[in-house]
Amino acid sequence: MNEPPPHSPEIPSPLAYTDSVLTIDLDAIVANWRLLRTRAHGAEVAAVVKANGYGLGAAEVAHKLASAGCNLFFVAHIDEGLSLRRSFAGRPFAPEIAVLNGLPPGTEALFLEHRLTPVLNDDDAVRRWLGAAPMPHPASAILHVDSGINRLGMSLSSLRELAADEGFAAYPWRALMSHLACPETPAHEQNARQLALFRDAQSLLPGVPASLAASSGIFLGADYAFDLVRPGAALYGVNPLSTGPNPMRPVVALSARILQVRDVDRGMAVGYGAAHSMASSGRIATISLGYADGFPRSAGLVGAMSIGGFEAPVIGRISMDLITLDVSQIPQSVAVQGAMVDVLGAHRSVDDLARDSGTIGYEILTGIGDRYTRVYRGQA
Amino acid sequence: MNEPPPHSPEIPSPLAYTDSVLTIDLDAIVANWRLLRTRAHGAEVAAVVKANGYGLGAAEVAHKLASAGCNLFFVAHIDEGLSLRRSFAGRPFAPEIAVLNGLPPGTEALFLEHRLTPVLNDDDAVRRWLGAAPMPHPASAILHVDSGINRLGMSLSSLRELAADEGFAAYPWRALMSHLACPETPAHEQNARQLALFRDAQSLLPGVPASLAASSGIFLGADYAFDLVRPGAALYGVNPLSTGPNPMRPVVALSARILQVRDVDRGMAVGYGAAHSMASSGRIATISLGYADGFPRSAGLVGAMSIGGFEAPVIGRISMDLITLDVSQIPQSVAVQGAMVDVLGAHRSVDDLARDSGTIGYEILTGIGDRYTRVYRGQA
Repeated sequence: MNEPPPHSPEIPSPLAYTDSVLTIDLDAIVANWRLLRTRAHGAEVAAVVKANGYGLGAAEVAHKLASAGCNLFFVAHIDEGLSLRRSFAGRPFAPEIAVLNGLPPGTEALFLEHRLTPVLNDDDAVRRWLGAAPMPHPASAILHVDSGINRLGMSLSSLRELAADEGFAAYPWRALMSHLACPETPAHEQNARQLALFRDAQSLLPGVPASLAASSGIFLGADYAFDLVRPGAALYGVNPLSTGPNPMRPVVALSARILQVRDVDRGMAVGYGAAHSMASSGRIATISLGYADGFPRSAGLVGAMSIGGFEAPVIGRISMDLITLDVSQIPQSVAVQGAMVDVLGAHRSVDDLARDSGTIGYEILTGIGDRYTRVYRGQA
Repeated sequence: MNEPPPHSPEIPSPLAYTDSVLTIDLDAIVANWRLLRTRAHGAEVAAVVKANGYGLGAAEVAHKLASAGCNLFFVAHIDEGLSLRRSFAGRPFAPEIAVLNGLPPGTEALFLEHRLTPVLNDDDAVRRWLGAAPMPHPASAILHVDSGINRLGMSLSSLRELAADEGFAAYPWRALMSHLACPETPAHEQNARQLALFRDAQSLLPGVPASLAASSGIFLGADYAFDLVRPGAALYGVNPLSTGPNPMRPVVALSARILQVRDVDRGMAVGYGAAHSMASSGRIATISLGYADGFPRSAGLVGAMSIGGFEAPVIGRISMDLITLDVSQIPQSVAVQGAMVDVLGAHRSVDDLARDSGTIGYEILTGIGDRYTRVYRGQA
């Protein structure tokens, strides 16, 4: 029962007892960033690393992309910005870090001290920023106009009022941005509507770099590229296109160890709720992975994992820390205690798992847990 | 636009810019542990703190429960056990810490060195343990027999073979455990079947403390209590009963800040995919919380949050870092920028959110993100 696993996972030696390994290919992230540059019609390509780099490590991702030439990173929260800024201490790059969720009252000095770039979502934030960092000592800030997603950002009429002021118009804004609601559906009429409104906004601030597109928006063509694009999900390998093959390189691989293999008889129940009943006798492998690790409980009804290239269907309900696989059709020498099972990788992408669990790749990535041994490929 | 929020959140002062606050009531966890003791028919009550204490902080929970008299904690992974052991350094308690996912080959010395109690899931693990910690210097270990969930644990026949050996039978096993598949459904025939099998197993090892019930199993009555019970979810306020009111005290409260309030016209689209269209003109509040924080994307279609006691329905799709609420029916002085919105609390429990997103409270808890300011009540 104690044979060596048939294919050896990439595990740092002091962690030989590790139960699961998340491999993050930073070289693939750089390749994706470069591919997006070729699609961005000359626009600057920033990188969105909010939510801890979509679960993959904001610092690791940003350090790597900075070394490849990316100079602007977006986070959502101030704390994320401060943490990312700290992570660059002692490194040769000091990129811009923009905070999407805005400039809360009272945080202006904090932004200035740590060279964070606020995204100004309303006229009050604009006024507070102009008070904190007035000419002739302006600091970097981004204006956010809502063009129809109705989520964050000032209205076009607010922007028009502000732009009537000479001091506002003369301020060296880092960018004027907006955000699309339906970019993954190129034919959606909302795209053209938002584009038209954003052009109106842009005309109020000639000379200020404009930014409308995130991952999917980059693939809407030259009209949507403007001066700056802000990809997130596509960098991490999520398909930015709702139809057609994924142009991005996969970034994530996930494997988990078989804790036990058991023989089961026909009719035996497997897992919580006795929800699965064996149609015939066979063998079950239990792996050290569960919904606490971000493998959605709702993915338990479909999909398979891979063991040494053999397909192993998930059976029974997903537990918090355990998943059971039907390995009846896999050679006993392959589906063996201690072997590593491929959960995400060549056989099953993040998007596949998202589809099987009724969500999107973005939520799979941000839901990735922290009990993995993380292995970074190509770390900067 | 810059009024003070109408009800002040409990935020540590250096984090006045915090966007969201997760409050964890450790006193309620102790109260739940004590309630379970009154229901456990004299059995010892351990505490399951795997998956970082179901997302709420394994160390904080265990320190508090240890000070209340709990002396045995269960984790899933070795790393969780080591981390929890380290957290008790310099504290007056040195509780037992048991590792459910077993004793991987080669880790025996690690378990002994750090006084971790392995749960032995197969005969090979038993033999390795007896080799590593033989009589007359035995160490704490738990035997796990599978009684019908077919997930982890040795078979009854394996246990019978082992028990025929005198050395095995004389070893001072810490416990003999098994795990129920359907305890939240008292009438399910699987419960009685597992009980009968477990009794057979118990009869092989007279004198060894027996343990079958976790949270829901405790409520199945005296037959299921045996000598030791292992609650997890119920400690954290999840309802252990599939029908009827929740006997447990709520533990978690979650609030998030309003970043912006906007007026919207009839027919305007809100959020990704333009999936929501305003039936009439009104106001929208956008809060700093999203699925990256563990608020499931699938919960976007139902449910409401609470602002100053007023109900605010979620509208539009849940974004990674933002959620939009319809605040048209709430006084403008209440639904104001900077105000805190109650996401989980008296108006909506963890179980409510689980039901609304098609999962169980366990997955909501373990999915809780790490961008919150965490406030512990009653910290030990």
